[in-house]
Amino acid sequence: MKLASLKNGRDGTLIVVNKKLQHAVEVPGIAANLLQALENWPAVERKLELVYGSINAGNQAAEYLSRVTEETKVQQRVVDVPAYQRFLTELSATLDKGRVTNTFELNVGELAAALPRAPQFVDGSAYLAHVERVRKARGVEMPPSFLHDPLMYQAVSDGFLAPTEPIRMADEAWGIDFESEVGVVVDDVPAGVTPDQAAQHIKLILIINDVSLRNLIPDELAKGFGFLQSKPRSALSPAAVTPDELGSAWKDGKLHLPLVTHLNGKLFGEPNAGVDMQFNFPQLIAHAAKTRPLAAGSIVGSGTVANQDESKGSSCLAEKRVLEIIKDGKPKTPFMKFGDRVRIEMLDLRGATIFGAIEQAVEKSK
Amino acid sequence: MKLASLKNGRDGTLIVVNKKLQHAVEVPGIAANLLQALENWPAVERKLELVYGSINAGNQAAEYLSRVTEETKVQQRVVDVPAYQRFLTELSATLDKGRVTNTFELNVGELAAALPRAPQFVDGSAYLAHVERVRKARGVEMPPSFLHDPLMYQAVSDGFLAPTEPIRMADEAWGIDFESEVGVVVDDVPAGVTPDQAAQHIKLILIINDVSLRNLIPDELAKGFGFLQSKPRSALSPAAVTPDELGSAWKDGKLHLPLVTHLNGKLFGEPNAGVDMQFNFPQLIAHAAKTRPLAAGSIVGSGTVANQDESKGSSCLAEKRVLEIIKDGKPKTPFMKFGDRVRIEMLDLRGATIFGAIEQAVEKSK
Repeated sequence: MKLASLKNGRDGTLIVVNKKLQHAVEVPGIAANLLQALENWPAVERKLELVYGSINAGNQAAEYLSRVTEETKVQQRVVDVPAYQRFLTELSATLDKGRVTNTFELNVGELAAALPRAPQFVDGSAYLAHVERVRKARGVEMPPSFLHDPLMYQAVSDGFLAPTEPIRMADEAWGIDFESEVGVVVDDVPAGVTPDQAAQHIKLILIINDVSLRNLIPDELAKGFGFLQSKPRSALSPAAVTPDELGSAWKDGKLHLPLVTHLNGKLFGEPNAGVDMQFNFPQLIAHAAKTRPLAAGSIVGSGTVANQDESKGSSCLAEKRVLEIIKDGKPKTPFMKFGDRVRIEMLDLRGATIFGAIEQAVEKSK
Repeated sequence: MKLASLKNGRDGTLIVVNKKLQHAVEVPGIAANLLQALENWPAVERKLELVYGSINAGNQAAEYLSRVTEETKVQQRVVDVPAYQRFLTELSATLDKGRVTNTFELNVGELAAALPRAPQFVDGSAYLAHVERVRKARGVEMPPSFLHDPLMYQAVSDGFLAPTEPIRMADEAWGIDFESEVGVVVDDVPAGVTPDQAAQHIKLILIINDVSLRNLIPDELAKGFGFLQSKPRSALSPAAVTPDELGSAWKDGKLHLPLVTHLNGKLFGEPNAGVDMQFNFPQLIAHAAKTRPLAAGSIVGSGTVANQDESKGSSCLAEKRVLEIIKDGKPKTPFMKFGDRVRIEMLDLRGATIFGAIEQAVEKSK
């Protein structure tokens, strides 16, 4: 199923959206917001699934009805009109039975981040092609231990940007960059879980724009305590979806589909999130939970999706700049300027959007 | 005023406690939990203050009444008994008027962390005596930039340990250590605030045991992304108090009182939190908020309290071990073993507890 949050206070209002992200329905009788749903997952999961089934069935029936009605208009002179009318009446009844009442048209501008705030966000860096490239930019080698010990940092989660919310920054000189990532949302994870156990705790999957301020990173990392000012709030996709929604693309704890990034309307990268991921999500969760439990609603990020195959493009400007430095001695692609737009999306095998798009402009903060 | 949280779900139940931390009252009509109160501070602050005033007045009157009653018994043969009776009746009326109904005796075992979970915890390292000592242990010098650029890391806040909750760890070999700290809790802080503006956002003050796993730190910091496994959940004090509660001890954005740590019943350290603090809380908040807002309920920590004066002792085992290494070539104080107990407390100038004590035993996790 697909879940999202309407803008409303700090935690939003939970909505169930149909598969094509066209329609939605509030479910106040099930949970006020997505965090509350995750905290009570066993009690709410089946109810939410029923609503999701209904909203999809309702939409399918409505679509069919409208198509049939069009056909009827064309064919009504050549077919048994009363029979058609009976068929249409039956279809209407099915539609009403299956339909969730009070559905409304989905308007992405009204959506908060799929999970407006999380108890925790820990972000891995599981694509070593990315790690190698950005470290090259800083003139440092990747240690061999990175092949078996995941890189991961504690990120900010007190509020995520809505999918179409501007990235507001005071200064272009901070080196504003996007990072297109995949993330999973867990229920309560006990400390010390194995990767096999961790896999059972993945309840939802979403995409992330992990906004990064590249020019603040070197000084901050040199202090030794990780990212703080250099990693402001991230944006999340409009929808978060259950693993079953991804079909065969969700396999071995990875999401095997390209993550597509556009910059100012031009394709920037489409690496496959299932390729060259050194640690899968269950391994990342187990790493995060080694010495402590993770509260329901915690998000575990994949890190910037990157393939060894450079023809797939990049999921952040920093990588593209490194490749330019290697090729020409200096970067030619600038970091984001006020007014620049990034769009991050993942399409299923039929070309339909899975999570909806993150689409953000950079703006000067007031 | 002094606020605390009863154990109840993820966010606890807000209670107002009297100055001496003996009695408390639930305030469901004001806010369900402390996080909710912080999110609506302007609307609830005055109401909570009235309850606090009442509970203290009630307690004072009750105390006075019981003392007077004792005296009455002693003196009743030598004084005007009817006059005493009239006085007692009047006092009882005052007591009833001032008293908050449904107060109950405070039992620290029923308390959650003052703020059971926070949207964010960013922990500074403002006492450079600590920074210098622990870096010496790792054989690295403190860069001069640390004098004007605060060290700070994004810490975990998805659940804090209750003040008497055991520190449960799977392995003593992780090098279990405490860190006694002061923290402030803010309301909503906009991005880019100055320290002067930041000062206005400090709503509550509390103490923290920032549990640290010393033997996991070197490898984790070497990876460059900061602490994750090496900084599990922290414990918070029983009560969080408003700045006015601290009187003249709250000055220049610092808390000028010794923070007292006992290990297994023996005094371990009592450095003054107002001494040798290189960056005050408003500066730490402004640092955290440079590129992003901080949500109401965010906690900003001071880092391990440490004075240059070594006679004040330490607020963590790591420092004591460094001083031993410098003196004798090797550490003689071990890290915490299963069964060891740490107690962290701050007393006012009259010797009364301000926040109540954090008192935790280390236990092997199951």
